[in-house]
Amino acid sequence: MKVVALAGGVGGARLADGLAQNLPPEDLTVVVNIGDDFDFFGLHICPDLDTVCYTLAGMANPATGWGLAGETWNALENIGRLGGPTWFRLGDRDLGTHLERTRRLAKGEPLSQITGDFCRAWGIQLTVLPASDDSVPTWVYTDEGEMPFQEYFVRRQCRPSVSGFRFADVDRSSPAKGVLEAIQRADLVVICPSNPWVSVDPILAIPGILPAVMSRPVLAVSPIIGGRTVKGPAAKMYAELGIEPSALSVARHYRKFLSAFVLDREDAALQSEVQALGVKALVTATWMHTAADRRQLAAECLSLGSALL
Amino acid sequence: MKVVALAGGVGGARLADGLAQNLPPEDLTVVVNIGDDFDFFGLHICPDLDTVCYTLAGMANPATGWGLAGETWNALENIGRLGGPTWFRLGDRDLGTHLERTRRLAKGEPLSQITGDFCRAWGIQLTVLPASDDSVPTWVYTDEGEMPFQEYFVRRQCRPSVSGFRFADVDRSSPAKGVLEAIQRADLVVICPSNPWVSVDPILAIPGILPAVMSRPVLAVSPIIGGRTVKGPAAKMYAELGIEPSALSVARHYRKFLSAFVLDREDAALQSEVQALGVKALVTATWMHTAADRRQLAAECLSLGSALL
Repeated sequence: MKVVALAGGVGGARLADGLAQNLPPEDLTVVVNIGDDFDFFGLHICPDLDTVCYTLAGMANPATGWGLAGETWNALENIGRLGGPTWFRLGDRDLGTHLERTRRLAKGEPLSQITGDFCRAWGIQLTVLPASDDSVPTWVYTDEGEMPFQEYFVRRQCRPSVSGFRFADVDRSSPAKGVLEAIQRADLVVICPSNPWVSVDPILAIPGILPAVMSRPVLAVSPIIGGRTVKGPAAKMYAELGIEPSALSVARHYRKFLSAFVLDREDAALQSEVQALGVKALVTATWMHTAADRRQLAAECLSLGSALL
Repeated sequence: MKVVALAGGVGGARLADGLAQNLPPEDLTVVVNIGDDFDFFGLHICPDLDTVCYTLAGMANPATGWGLAGETWNALENIGRLGGPTWFRLGDRDLGTHLERTRRLAKGEPLSQITGDFCRAWGIQLTVLPASDDSVPTWVYTDEGEMPFQEYFVRRQCRPSVSGFRFADVDRSSPAKGVLEAIQRADLVVICPSNPWVSVDPILAIPGILPAVMSRPVLAVSPIIGGRTVKGPAAKMYAELGIEPSALSVARHYRKFLSAFVLDREDAALQSEVQALGVKALVTATWMHTAADRRQLAAECLSLGSALL
């Protein structure tokens, strides 16, 4: 079964890792959100892409989910001493990634090609693609004005109340080489338990991707469990947008193209309402604490997905 | 006695540190070569300025003379794994300096202002000034063609044979704010034991600096001892340019404006020839192994310099 996973940050990275434990590398392509990419100190930083790659390479910091295991912070400490901005945590090892990526981008190489080379260097055998080689920065409308995503997410710690999102320049963007091809030949598209608003929607907004996704069986895993998010602001965003934060709301978010949906046991009561949307619903354990959790959840997703073929 | 020291890399930094141990901070200004500054990974790197500041702050790596004590190399290790260039050794802590400097330069702040703020942050009380806020990159003519200074110095390890030097855009450059004022009110200009060709000449080539220096008593310390350099390619350069590498050649290099010259005991035989140039010559121990060596040599320079007043 050929699978394309759409992924954002930590939750997406973990399910992608679970899928990688169940599929031969040639059968899995992970398409990663680039809407939260930003420039800092002149470096081009791709937080979701790095989280996915570090996780797939087994290099991620298991405590935080983002960043690298065994990371050091000497550059940032010096920057802080010099009075520079330290709100985005640049680890030393991680800086090497940003520096080399920025150097190659400045030479005109596409992000997807650089990402492929980085994956090979880190021993990742499956294909990881940025959703686009273009810059499609997410802006967040809030009660304190419009702000770039990382300003909202990291610097302001998601404190402002959101009223909407904008994916700048998205109309002029196109999918990275290989993205549409991978989706078109996929037996299943898996939407990972990532933030629907700021991790998955920015991928689907890139011209051509949504129609391709709609042509395939699509399975999504809820990032909301019991009205809360495992990590990140998705539940808070739903509430601020006037929508009840629940797995059901996530299923409704994707209903236009959703074939199957995976909810946590805590949300078993919502199963029939999801099914009423015309979507196959599976209730299971969706927390991914360990590598075995990831493998198990991914196996159940693939099993449900194969029933859609 | 108000002193301006002209300094390049490690030798210059060490004598500057010796002078700082002998003078109140308000009486010492160190003007630093910027000819070997370059851009790498989009970062603006100022090797001589950093060596001088790290040394004055007591943060320098005592073994190498450049870089920081207790440095880590995790960014560079990752860059190497990704196949990026690692010929210039970017330490993690050091990267913080380059990142914050580059960030502020991109905002339009002059290098001299940034350097002043960095010095305050690092606890350096005297004034350290880049020779210019403009970019004046040194190019080296060699038997393998013309190359940027760091390409010659670090990447090629000074292997090509040199035939000359070019300080690009120097005619359009001007001294950084405070440089001419400091020289004009100095009782003594000290030319540190730095490379005459690629550390001191690039400072003197900036319009206005040489006339200001020529109006003051000037003392130089030979970077060549017994026909060799303590560090760096000065002796090799003299030989390749067809000039005998010796302390005497250094004195001749500066003879247009030199009042006093300090040679090592190993070169005592050259003292009379230096004096024949009309230059006061002091023979003493010029190796600077320890902080006490630096202090002692600087004290002797200041004593000789005060005899010039």
